Amino acid sequence: MEKLYEGKAKIIYSTEDPEILLTHFKDDATAFNAQKRGTITEKGAINCRISSALFQLLENQGLATHYLDQPTPQQMRVKSVTILPLEVVVRNIAAGSLCRETGLEQGTILPFPLVEFYYKKDELGDPILTRDRILILNLASLNQLEQLQTKALAINTHLKTFFSQCGITLVDFKLEFGLDKEGNLLLADEISPDTCRLWDQNEPDPEARVMDKDRFRQDLGKVENAYQQVQTRILSQLQLTTKES
Amino acid sequence: MEKLYEGKAKIIYSTEDPEILLTHFKDDATAFNAQKRGTITEKGAINCRISSALFQLLENQGLATHYLDQPTPQQMRVKSVTILPLEVVVRNIAAGSLCRETGLEQGTILPFPLVEFYYKKDELGDPILTRDRILILNLASLNQLEQLQTKALAINTHLKTFFSQCGITLVDFKLEFGLDKEGNLLLADEISPDTCRLWDQNEPDPEARVMDKDRFRQDLGKVENAYQQVQTRILSQLQLTTKES
Repeated sequence: MEKLYEGKAKIIYSTEDPEILLTHFKDDATAFNAQKRGTITEKGAINCRISSALFQLLENQGLATHYLDQPTPQQMRVKSVTILPLEVVVRNIAAGSLCRETGLEQGTILPFPLVEFYYKKDELGDPILTRDRILILNLASLNQLEQLQTKALAINTHLKTFFSQCGITLVDFKLEFGLDKEGNLLLADEISPDTCRLWDQNEPDPEARVMDKDRFRQDLGKVENAYQQVQTRILSQLQLTTKES
Repeated sequence: MEKLYEGKAKIIYSTEDPEILLTHFKDDATAFNAQKRGTITEKGAINCRISSALFQLLENQGLATHYLDQPTPQQMRVKSVTILPLEVVVRNIAAGSLCRETGLEQGTILPFPLVEFYYKKDELGDPILTRDRILILNLASLNQLEQLQTKALAINTHLKTFFSQCGITLVDFKLEFGLDKEGNLLLADEISPDTCRLWDQNEPDPEARVMDKDRFRQDLGKVENAYQQVQTRILSQLQLTTKES
């Protein structure tokens, strides 16, 4: 195994099979383009478990992901893909940069799910990109953009329903996609409290309801607790669904 | 006459006719969201003259503008419209914020003219808006957005050709549109070296070729000279065209 890449939250290793990579989920947490750094105990294992569960859920709905299996608590085996340098963000409720950049009030329910693209480029501060800018920068083709939009909306539909069954509101989330050897777009990266905004459905208090990395970003405390709670609810709901079927 | 509004570069007065406003063009210059301030001698009269000439040129091509006439050197009579809170920017060559936000090199010729929308909102720093954000903020309808895109591209085609005849490269420019009582979208505001990036076609030096407000923004000197030169070339070209026809 050779370390191919180390990011802020994950390390990617090669395996004996060139088509398969091993992702190691770290406990390290960063925010604000890595200006804020810290550690969230057990985060690696929790995010790996949650991501595995959600990737399997989406695969069962016919949505292709890079997920293969989870050999150890902090490791996921994935198909080798070329990651597009785009963060695909889906928003159901206004929060974060959308509020800062438009003046929309935090918590505003959007009239339709908003699919937005950001440039994965730390030195530029991950700016938002219009469709035309993506085309001009050759970051994706028009056909790929349309596929990304369709896939992101389908993923949102499934995840929103599932999280709602867990008593969690899916506010927004970030996806990354990669191209396999055949040029198929697969959902990649992770889906976890690091990459989603998740609010406890039955908690009206705007600070207490936060179950995601905003607890770390905004120093709200009980970060580990929130991540564990999300994992517990997801796994319980999946057991329930399995028993029913 | 009552002063209705004073902006950074213009003052708007009412007239005896509620359908008609009087725009006074100031010599004041501002940049970087008014953090930089100054005066450009004769700018008011030059921008008023250039804008009048270009509005008439576009009207002759069947593109509706708010322009009526120019009663004095610094004043333009215009149709009263409700200005949309959008800056419509058309780019032929990469410059300014496009380069800062995407890493594209200044001077890159774009594969197609880029029509972009910015939110006219000083307190948010005039951020770029995607089509979906415009719809969610209710700043324009989908039909109005499509009209703005079509009109902006048509205006670009005519202006690019005309400026080229003047020996000037139209790099990019900002437009504002307003709605009249009947809901028609009219081109409004101004078209001048304050709102366009204009490069001298026969001057290869990247500083010497600048004929627009970037001379003021970047302290390149000879600001008045550049504005006067643009006016002279435009008026000469118009005389030539009139003689020919």
